[in-house]
Amino acid sequence: MNLIRVLDAVDPRICAFRDVKERDLTGRQGLFVAEGEVVLRVLVSAASRCEPVAVLIAEKRLEALRDILECLPEDVPVYTAPQDVLDGIAGFHLHRGILALGRKPGAPALEDFLEGMPDRAVLVGACGIGNHDNMGGLFRNAAAFGAAGLLLDTTCCDPFYRKAIRVSVGAALRTPFVEGVTAAAMVEALQARDFEVLALTPSAAETLAQLKPAPRTAILLGSEGPGLPAEVIARCRPLAIRMSGGFDSLNVATTSAVALHHLTRAAETPWGA
Amino acid sequence: MNLIRVLDAVDPRICAFRDVKERDLTGRQGLFVAEGEVVLRVLVSAASRCEPVAVLIAEKRLEALRDILECLPEDVPVYTAPQDVLDGIAGFHLHRGILALGRKPGAPALEDFLEGMPDRAVLVGACGIGNHDNMGGLFRNAAAFGAAGLLLDTTCCDPFYRKAIRVSVGAALRTPFVEGVTAAAMVEALQARDFEVLALTPSAAETLAQLKPAPRTAILLGSEGPGLPAEVIARCRPLAIRMSGGFDSLNVATTSAVALHHLTRAAETPWGA
Repeated sequence: MNLIRVLDAVDPRICAFRDVKERDLTGRQGLFVAEGEVVLRVLVSAASRCEPVAVLIAEKRLEALRDILECLPEDVPVYTAPQDVLDGIAGFHLHRGILALGRKPGAPALEDFLEGMPDRAVLVGACGIGNHDNMGGLFRNAAAFGAAGLLLDTTCCDPFYRKAIRVSVGAALRTPFVEGVTAAAMVEALQARDFEVLALTPSAAETLAQLKPAPRTAILLGSEGPGLPAEVIARCRPLAIRMSGGFDSLNVATTSAVALHHLTRAAETPWGA
Repeated sequence: MNLIRVLDAVDPRICAFRDVKERDLTGRQGLFVAEGEVVLRVLVSAASRCEPVAVLIAEKRLEALRDILECLPEDVPVYTAPQDVLDGIAGFHLHRGILALGRKPGAPALEDFLEGMPDRAVLVGACGIGNHDNMGGLFRNAAAFGAAGLLLDTTCCDPFYRKAIRVSVGAALRTPFVEGVTAAAMVEALQARDFEVLALTPSAAETLAQLKPAPRTAILLGSEGPGLPAEVIARCRPLAIRMSGGFDSLNVATTSAVALHHLTRAAETPWGA
């Protein structure tokens, strides 16, 4: 372990960690900052698609986390500081006591991303998801139900934003995704690869529970409030989650879990695999 | 509409709204404060179990919300103030521009609550849910899927906390619940009323997808991390949501939605009602 003690919040070696909250908003040239033990464990795991660049950790947490820190490559510095110095670096009280700096993986092109998909696969397409909690929730649920990846349209927020990573419990660092495609291009490319594209919308006549899923299926989710654009829905198979009269409102990440459970449970139901 | 203009943040008539954040933590003698248009619409609706006591609203929002405000009884004052005075009263920038003071409904006894349940019903039992986002999510999902009510054990947080109400999109104000019972008493009372009690736990051998639900079913959910106590699980039918290898982690509110969708979709599946 490449351990380096830091005693000054303005030490130039840890400048990448400074003022974390403000810098969340400006980007970091291909790097991201993640926080907490759960996320650090994912970052150093074999499943991670991201490289660790540096770690900053409270002195008092060092012993308890030694097993993770020893998995880091020797060229990744582990900066350690007293809690008050750490708080001064981050710009707020960092009660989890861990920050990790990582490098984002290269973004695949849409065609390359779809090229590698297996014959049986579920994908999650997200349109206009601007809330980092919801983005993190989508990644968490995609990972939990074994989705092969996510497609984020041009109006989605960054899944490498600190809060999105935290809410994803690290799934943002391991689940493959493409970004920066329009919803129309996403639907067209999926259908060209024999994915049945299901547009989740409360206005649909057919319900999720009635669906027998195709081997390759993608679910398309819009933002809460406006939902998916009508012209996108028109090109897909629209599907509703049946809800109780007078209260048809589910969170978008919750919707993804309900749909993914239905799609991935097919092997367990009477209709078989 | 009983409209009263307020020009001073320390006006004694609006003292119930002062320093909202701090007072969230101390309780309000049977009253609660809710925020935002969506929640206010639920509070004044016929479905609400709570009485509105007073409303405080930004002057600039008055016209747009006139249709809701005119539904209020004449004895409920509608205080209105410029945005800066409103912020001074609340103690933070109240960008939604609406606060409502309401009275909690009387808490039913466990036996009375169960006495009124129909022959076909789904209930949600929550044990140790201390996070207000999760509590709000449980209420939102219970309402969305038409659950007949919730049971909160002694270690759950208050669903009338401002953030829980907001996340519930008002469901906390309309969905019946009991609170302050132990998990053991909850399970015993449910089973005595012919409810099959399903303990959601990743350790179960049987999966949710395999379950054909009984007419009366209750799902029991523990907090993230520790989950349900082993002695509680032992008295129920344990059930897992099958997840992808290496990432068996769902948020507790999300878990409720997945389970409620499965239970309430029974009427739509091949096995019939």
